Amino acid sequence: MQYSLTAGGKRLRPALVLETARACSAGATPAAKPDSALAAAVAIELVHTFSLVHDDLPAMDDDDLRRGRPTNHKVYGEAMAILAGDAMIALAFEVLATDADPAVAPALVRELAHATGPAGMIGGQVLDIDGQHLALSFDGLKQIHAMKTGALLTASCRMGALSGGASSQTLEAVTAFGRHLGLAFQIIDDVLDVTSTPAELGKATGKDKDRGKNTYPQLLGLDESIRAATEQLELALRAINDLGPAANGLRAIARFVVERTK
Amino acid sequence: MQYSLTAGGKRLRPALVLETARACSAGATPAAKPDSALAAAVAIELVHTFSLVHDDLPAMDDDDLRRGRPTNHKVYGEAMAILAGDAMIALAFEVLATDADPAVAPALVRELAHATGPAGMIGGQVLDIDGQHLALSFDGLKQIHAMKTGALLTASCRMGALSGGASSQTLEAVTAFGRHLGLAFQIIDDVLDVTSTPAELGKATGKDKDRGKNTYPQLLGLDESIRAATEQLELALRAINDLGPAANGLRAIARFVVERTK
Repeated sequence: MQYSLTAGGKRLRPALVLETARACSAGATPAAKPDSALAAAVAIELVHTFSLVHDDLPAMDDDDLRRGRPTNHKVYGEAMAILAGDAMIALAFEVLATDADPAVAPALVRELAHATGPAGMIGGQVLDIDGQHLALSFDGLKQIHAMKTGALLTASCRMGALSGGASSQTLEAVTAFGRHLGLAFQIIDDVLDVTSTPAELGKATGKDKDRGKNTYPQLLGLDESIRAATEQLELALRAINDLGPAANGLRAIARFVVERTK
Repeated sequence: MQYSLTAGGKRLRPALVLETARACSAGATPAAKPDSALAAAVAIELVHTFSLVHDDLPAMDDDDLRRGRPTNHKVYGEAMAILAGDAMIALAFEVLATDADPAVAPALVRELAHATGPAGMIGGQVLDIDGQHLALSFDGLKQIHAMKTGALLTASCRMGALSGGASSQTLEAVTAFGRHLGLAFQIIDDVLDVTSTPAELGKATGKDKDRGKNTYPQLLGLDESIRAATEQLELALRAINDLGPAANGLRAIARFVVERTK
């Protein structure tokens, strides 16, 4: 668990949790309930890391490199990698139930569990595997991405908002922000798989095509994909327009997601 | 998920949750908070079933038969079996956070997550794998079993008690009951692996010995193992002596655990 959790990565999801909590609290001061937001940030990174460890397994994507290091099962073996992933899911919910404010803990657990399970990330992974080597429509691809990547990114924003004591109107705005950002993120991820080297990304590249995976560049072409990502970024920024300067950190993260090169 | 969840099994853990909730509520009437107890019962069976699906994987115990049917990965493949297990963990916590009383939901999530994760079932599985083909002491074996099987059985009892609104004294009694019962359960499991046929158990038998696993019959012999299980049963029953007739269902489950033949 420690090996994969400390391998670095962008920490995008926990950053989204903390910055959304800040944006939803009054002014630019620290979040109203820093412990809840911190617990949510830790929990979502645990779930994200579990998903990487299991996705890399021989029975799944069979990857050797992740975050610039050998994948978990390459170092510890398949059994330990499966167990490490399992334990990270459990630990995520333990952290939430132990460290978040009991007034928001059930809502945070519900958000994370729903975004992780059959209706979210794992469900999207199932559809993705089932859809390999099938010609998907653009809408079909969007649906898979909304579940596989979007659900957890949206949940990051919603958990931050819930930790920050957001009104239902703000929660709605932040949810829309998360959805658009999630789509932008996945489009850019697909683009980078085509345009980057393994040394730049810290993981294998060009593998989507090799595996017959449905991607944006394949369906739309590279230029049109980048244009679609930029459009999603604009929609994301528009959704949180009313949040004022407290959301500047959140806006910076959104721009980073589209402008990043790894 | 459905294939493995509806394969039957003894439903021991959910039965423990519901009967402990009943025993801790006033008199023999239904539990004070039936929804919370039912959510806890469902959640713990989801976690238990996930653990069976992942334990059966080729990288783990590599079993073909479970609850009298082909194992999950034999039917759906390894990738889907891994994902089904993962999704069952997430769903367990979603059920708790959605259906249990918000006043007890954080405590229920904490119990289940702690009993599942590194300090509980999964941690015990790691120690068990690491200890294969090593000569363990009786205390070392007890420690592994306390984590691997005992943690979830004890959590079943504690979650039932929390759902039923138990006093801290009753919670303590029920915890002791769960610990003794967990040990008795595992001893009998080891005994049945030696004395039963696959047709009787619905899974492969004799495999502990083949794999160099440390077991009670191997350390103590069969007769002494059965005596040890009976002693644990007596200690379990003594722990809930003060709970009166409302705990009769719980006592029946405890006897079943030691007297069962499958």
